[in-house]
Amino acid sequence: MKTAVIIIFDDFTDIDVFLPWDLLNRVKAFVPDFTVKIIGTGSVHTSSTGIDLATHASIELCSTADLVVVASGKGTRTLIKDNEFLSRIHLDPDRQVICSLCTGSLILAALGHLKGLSATTYPTAFDLLRSYEVDVIENESLVIQGNIATAAECLAAIELMSWAIGKLFGEDISSNVLATVTPNGKTISV
Amino acid sequence: MKTAVIIIFDDFTDIDVFLPWDLLNRVKAFVPDFTVKIIGTGSVHTSSTGIDLATHASIELCSTADLVVVASGKGTRTLIKDNEFLSRIHLDPDRQVICSLCTGSLILAALGHLKGLSATTYPTAFDLLRSYEVDVIENESLVIQGNIATAAECLAAIELMSWAIGKLFGEDISSNVLATVTPNGKTISV
Repeated sequence: MKTAVIIIFDDFTDIDVFLPWDLLNRVKAFVPDFTVKIIGTGSVHTSSTGIDLATHASIELCSTADLVVVASGKGTRTLIKDNEFLSRIHLDPDRQVICSLCTGSLILAALGHLKGLSATTYPTAFDLLRSYEVDVIENESLVIQGNIATAAECLAAIELMSWAIGKLFGEDISSNVLATVTPNGKTISV
Repeated sequence: MKTAVIIIFDDFTDIDVFLPWDLLNRVKAFVPDFTVKIIGTGSVHTSSTGIDLATHASIELCSTADLVVVASGKGTRTLIKDNEFLSRIHLDPDRQVICSLCTGSLILAALGHLKGLSATTYPTAFDLLRSYEVDVIENESLVIQGNIATAAECLAAIELMSWAIGKLFGEDISSNVLATVTPNGKTISV
């Protein structure tokens, strides 16, 4: 049974949580025993627009998940200096598929997982990401390094989740999930 | 001061609420006195994936909003037969910009606003929408009829909101909002 978690925190960006959440939940139509949980340090976290979102489990659960999605938002700027917060996140890129949206990559960088690697982030955070010895790719929406993928900006969540679902369950499942949200009469290229 | 509301209900689809919500909130960076509220018949509604979302006001507020977005989800199938629910929604397409995502158009149809007009919906609801004397356009993601726009499927929320924001505030504001979510190095055509 495979599991996914989405790490949230106060001042998260709505799209960056709910787009991955919705897309990952659609996997269950094809892989019924897949579970997706929203995790954080609190029982509820509030987005930058004021949406209160309850967590399903504590942030430590990220260490056992097959897929970890780090959300983004203004909150990341504080958290990357919060050692107590960072000390509760244990990830293993050899064993886990790890994704970030926008400034979520700052958290991965602060944890040391992007040192010497290529990655992307929200344009206003390029310099900050660079300060963690990361090779910042400014003009790509999805940067993949082994099991770690960083994406920017918000709507890149679609290609990021497409990649992650493909990594966990194969391209067919990934395409099937995308088909359920693709605007009528259109195709989405990812 | 312009106002927008998003109508939610139990068993709503996450993307169809949170994508419009996030995009509309981004308008505030350019139009500070714009307000966006989530409304419904309850104080909290639960999405089909189990997300509890609090409402900011009661559903009757839709009658005074400049922009009304009707969300979608499994819940619409019950609501279109619920006369008490329908009797609380008063819309005026001459005065208001009215949008629906996916099966949200079933609610607009049940209210009589799509009779004799063209519209779209989620593919599994084409026949049901047709039963309300609607000319169902199956192969378009966005169907505009005066001040009413219906969109399908979920990710069509992007072009739907782009149209609605343009209608309320002009193309420049709409483009500026879209630019804040467009994946790095890409363009979104709407």
